[in-house]
Amino acid sequence: MPRTKTGRHHLFIPGPTNVPEPVLNALHVSSEDMRSADFPQLTLPLFKDLKKIFKTTKGNVFVFPGSGTGAWESAITNTMSPGEKVLIFRFGQFSLLWADMFKRLGLDVDVRDVPWGTGTPAEKIEKILKKDKNHKYKVVCVTQNETATGVSSDVAAVRKAMNAAKHPAMLFVDGVSSIASIDFRMDQWGVDCAISGSQKGFMLPAGLAILAASPKALKAHKKAQLKRCFYSWEDMLATNASGYFPYTPPTPMLRGLRVSIDMLLDEGLENVFARHHRIAEGVRQAVKEGWGLKLCAKGPKWESDTVSAIIVPKSADARKVIATAYGKYNLALGAGLNILAGKVFRIGHLGDLNELQAAAAITGAEMAMIDSGIKVKPGSGVAAASKYWLKNMKAPKKARK
Amino acid sequence: MPRTKTGRHHLFIPGPTNVPEPVLNALHVSSEDMRSADFPQLTLPLFKDLKKIFKTTKGNVFVFPGSGTGAWESAITNTMSPGEKVLIFRFGQFSLLWADMFKRLGLDVDVRDVPWGTGTPAEKIEKILKKDKNHKYKVVCVTQNETATGVSSDVAAVRKAMNAAKHPAMLFVDGVSSIASIDFRMDQWGVDCAISGSQKGFMLPAGLAILAASPKALKAHKKAQLKRCFYSWEDMLATNASGYFPYTPPTPMLRGLRVSIDMLLDEGLENVFARHHRIAEGVRQAVKEGWGLKLCAKGPKWESDTVSAIIVPKSADARKVIATAYGKYNLALGAGLNILAGKVFRIGHLGDLNELQAAAAITGAEMAMIDSGIKVKPGSGVAAASKYWLKNMKAPKKARK
Repeated sequence: MPRTKTGRHHLFIPGPTNVPEPVLNALHVSSEDMRSADFPQLTLPLFKDLKKIFKTTKGNVFVFPGSGTGAWESAITNTMSPGEKVLIFRFGQFSLLWADMFKRLGLDVDVRDVPWGTGTPAEKIEKILKKDKNHKYKVVCVTQNETATGVSSDVAAVRKAMNAAKHPAMLFVDGVSSIASIDFRMDQWGVDCAISGSQKGFMLPAGLAILAASPKALKAHKKAQLKRCFYSWEDMLATNASGYFPYTPPTPMLRGLRVSIDMLLDEGLENVFARHHRIAEGVRQAVKEGWGLKLCAKGPKWESDTVSAIIVPKSADARKVIATAYGKYNLALGAGLNILAGKVFRIGHLGDLNELQAAAAITGAEMAMIDSGIKVKPGSGVAAASKYWLKNMKAPKKARK
Repeated sequence: MPRTKTGRHHLFIPGPTNVPEPVLNALHVSSEDMRSADFPQLTLPLFKDLKKIFKTTKGNVFVFPGSGTGAWESAITNTMSPGEKVLIFRFGQFSLLWADMFKRLGLDVDVRDVPWGTGTPAEKIEKILKKDKNHKYKVVCVTQNETATGVSSDVAAVRKAMNAAKHPAMLFVDGVSSIASIDFRMDQWGVDCAISGSQKGFMLPAGLAILAASPKALKAHKKAQLKRCFYSWEDMLATNASGYFPYTPPTPMLRGLRVSIDMLLDEGLENVFARHHRIAEGVRQAVKEGWGLKLCAKGPKWESDTVSAIIVPKSADARKVIATAYGKYNLALGAGLNILAGKVFRIGHLGDLNELQAAAAITGAEMAMIDSGIKVKPGSGVAAASKYWLKNMKAPKKARK
């Protein structure tokens, strides 16, 4: 927190995202008895409405203390047994870490590398699964949004590929930086474990692992032999049914989640997705048309509506851009991770945002680039973005009464 | 949260505890970049000062998203290998759950039952360990404060017993409802894993698993074969060293922890312990002298300074007392857990509390008992408590300048 700086801080990392004031106020609450008679009045409707965000009526939602990483672990340990086979494509720091977790937890991980800047190739999955006559693969993983490269994968296409191969593997989706920001349809796409966290589309601080499990995943859970305790579903299922938790839940976060879900449903999920797309497209116009730079995402089909990774010219160091933005302009940008360190900076554009906030970030990134010796024209970013927005924006309205 | 009730809510469950206003205000903060250049300015001094609370200079502290349950799991999975032997005494719901977790994670647990209302018997541990010539036991567990029964165990005596037996087992202490409230000395008592959470003595909402590991535990960690990922120490050690985290930490909670540690150190830990003892003793005077009732704790040596479990007369149902206190007097009391359901109610007296708050709780519990048909004399509880406080209280002063 840059306390020495003046004015509002511009938080444009791809999560944690801005906490809206109504959510912040809901979090600002005294502790309470999580075993009280009226506690389920909070939790039971919360679980019900959370399902709407995942677009599932058949699945079960879980809210654990933790983070997206914890939700990964919960999905894995509750549905799998030691040595079972997993198929995952690696194309960025988060698909890399997810693959690594499977390995560390004792699974047999088939990791396929594809270029960073692309995503999960549905057509390859179909081929691989068709060859897997004995159904050795138990899980196919899709990182719906690779936060490190700003790449989105087509989950529906992967489901189609799995169906075409007539393969019974479960479909796990890492939706940490997509769910509640980008279209996600658990039931329709046949997703078995949908993984998220509180600090991205849910507009809360980090602190909750949020996930949803399909009936198929819940069935697999009954036979799953991996060791688990803190993240176990059995304890949650047993206690959540009546609105309680197996151990002390972070009650202010649940109060905050109540408000954030209300805000999402009030705006309407389709409007939330459209807003994210509109802001993202403005940023992309700034990058391509305004600055003449390239995104890490190799082509429009991979472009993410929640985060853009912007490649700086080879002569420049993106770390300098990020440090200048932070130190001089009170703007937090995301860094390049792993092999992208120094090569890209990232603009996170998800959560509680509007176009004018994005314009501020575009301006700050632009000035920091110029300060760092990158030749871009002052104002060119906002010019390109606003041209797009002028054509494509409507005044917002509430979806829910 | 009883929104329909008037006036201040009286939270007297044994955690989550009251969040002091300075901590609440510190939590009321926007999200921030956990990879920013100045983030370590928060975290590095925080880790350093957290060690003061555990009274360790040699150990390492860990702060994970989670709860006390998560801290249990972190201690176990990071220091042990499948099938290794553990000694634990069971005398309440929390020692029971801890023993259960060892089992579920694949350890060989020697669970010894002693009566609920007593605690860890150091003299028995000495005998058991003396017979264990081949040093099969890798860990000895002590629940320093059994929250279910209001029983404290003598950790120093257990260390003495282990030394007398010349046994190399590690000593794990569950200090979830004791650390930062009751005397705890990690280094002096030779504790290898000290386990806590944010929602008790640390006066924060639930959401953090807080633990400390001795050099011996860190050495054991290098050979520990249990599967772990979310709660792994290796990732934390690698990133914490420079002030960062392996995944997104709940930054507002860290801001809150900064303030709560400052408050604890400003008051002075010894003064914090004395205050807890004074309030607890007032409650005990009310129970015994005022109401003529008994505590679950079988004798003064087991009495806890953070929670009292009060046995209601056989003709009464403690659940009715708790429901009346909550519904009529805006007072949250703790329920009897497991075999104690209906037989006891609990008054949690830890965290940010003073004597007059305790007087309100005593009054509310008393009226709820009378409403429930239990024969106690109106005002008798506070009369007994205040007699004690009048003799034993001084005006508070700050320890740290």
